[in-house]
Amino acid sequence: MHKKVAVILSGSGVFDGAEIHESVIALLRLSQRGADVQCFAPNIAQHHVINHLTGEEMPETRNVLVEAARIARGAIKDLREAKVEDFDALIVPGGFGAAKNLCDFAFNGDQCAVQPDLLALAQAFAAAHKPVGLICIAPAMAPRIYGQGIECTIGNDADTAAALTRMGAKHVECTVEDIVEDAHHKLVTTPAYMLAQSIAEAASGINKLVDRVLELA
Amino acid sequence: MHKKVAVILSGSGVFDGAEIHESVIALLRLSQRGADVQCFAPNIAQHHVINHLTGEEMPETRNVLVEAARIARGAIKDLREAKVEDFDALIVPGGFGAAKNLCDFAFNGDQCAVQPDLLALAQAFAAAHKPVGLICIAPAMAPRIYGQGIECTIGNDADTAAALTRMGAKHVECTVEDIVEDAHHKLVTTPAYMLAQSIAEAASGINKLVDRVLELA
Repeated sequence: MHKKVAVILSGSGVFDGAEIHESVIALLRLSQRGADVQCFAPNIAQHHVINHLTGEEMPETRNVLVEAARIARGAIKDLREAKVEDFDALIVPGGFGAAKNLCDFAFNGDQCAVQPDLLALAQAFAAAHKPVGLICIAPAMAPRIYGQGIECTIGNDADTAAALTRMGAKHVECTVEDIVEDAHHKLVTTPAYMLAQSIAEAASGINKLVDRVLELA
Repeated sequence: MHKKVAVILSGSGVFDGAEIHESVIALLRLSQRGADVQCFAPNIAQHHVINHLTGEEMPETRNVLVEAARIARGAIKDLREAKVEDFDALIVPGGFGAAKNLCDFAFNGDQCAVQPDLLALAQAFAAAHKPVGLICIAPAMAPRIYGQGIECTIGNDADTAAALTRMGAKHVECTVEDIVEDAHHKLVTTPAYMLAQSIAEAASGINKLVDRVLELA
């Protein structure tokens, strides 16, 4: 009866990893709804390490999986172990880690590529017609996963929306407390901290996304 | 009208810093209740750095304030800047950081000392009769802050409760979804991940703690 959900983290911290609030809000709502969750992250070096107090780059290296384990309290696996047949749904929180470690949208915009293991996994969910939820900037990967015409949102940032459109997405403007659903592909997206002015605002949309993904699963 | 709450973080990650779920749940509830929040952390080196995937110590150093900034999305200040007159209440999430960086209870048990800046701040809240919420293992600091007879909980772990009792606390057993309140001192405590088997369980007690602290403020 419990829906099984894979959550993909990209480090731990908004500027170089998974956005911590978005990740925890998603995990909390999934737990409150009785879902069985397994976290995964790629076992790769972070693109870089940002001092979150100053915004400056730090002269060190950190591993995405090791840092993401902080959000998961150690209960996390290498992304390569994730198999579509083990899960009913997939959720990817945002943060710059989604745009720096899971793909390179932060650097290459509409020329971006998705990390190969995540691309293969997400495309397997799409092919199996299993729902996927992408939060914040993570929908930048949607055109690479689903191809032309995929409907999604990153909120209302004109430049980011234009890049998604050039990649083939049908971008739909969306307020922070709402979601956009591509009914055919079972993709659900929400802007979260692309728009949120508070953690409560971020939660309003993420909770709706989690609820809808579980309904579709 | 908005209650002003100082939240003290101790790094970012359950094994060497602030417990991320507990911290985010507290911040979320405070935001949902309309509180104005300012995060603080001591500008000191972490006691150590733990690889959260393996549980092993890592050969590097990290700063408590810099790492805590990950949870606060950069909106955090040096604990030395916290002034009791600027706030209506104080909340300290748990995680080993509370017992390794904010005090040394994890190493010295009932002989522990509280980090001097935090001790001074918390005692100022106590003297001003402003409410304080301590989550998870953070109540281990209560006897040092309030002195003999302070009523608090860390759940039901016998060894930890015995250490608190030796330090002069009146330990009260408590389930994960509940809180213990010392009405005279306006101290509210909840076990959170001292007992929680899921993030939803942790949230049940933390939400109750936040609500009660705001009522008392």
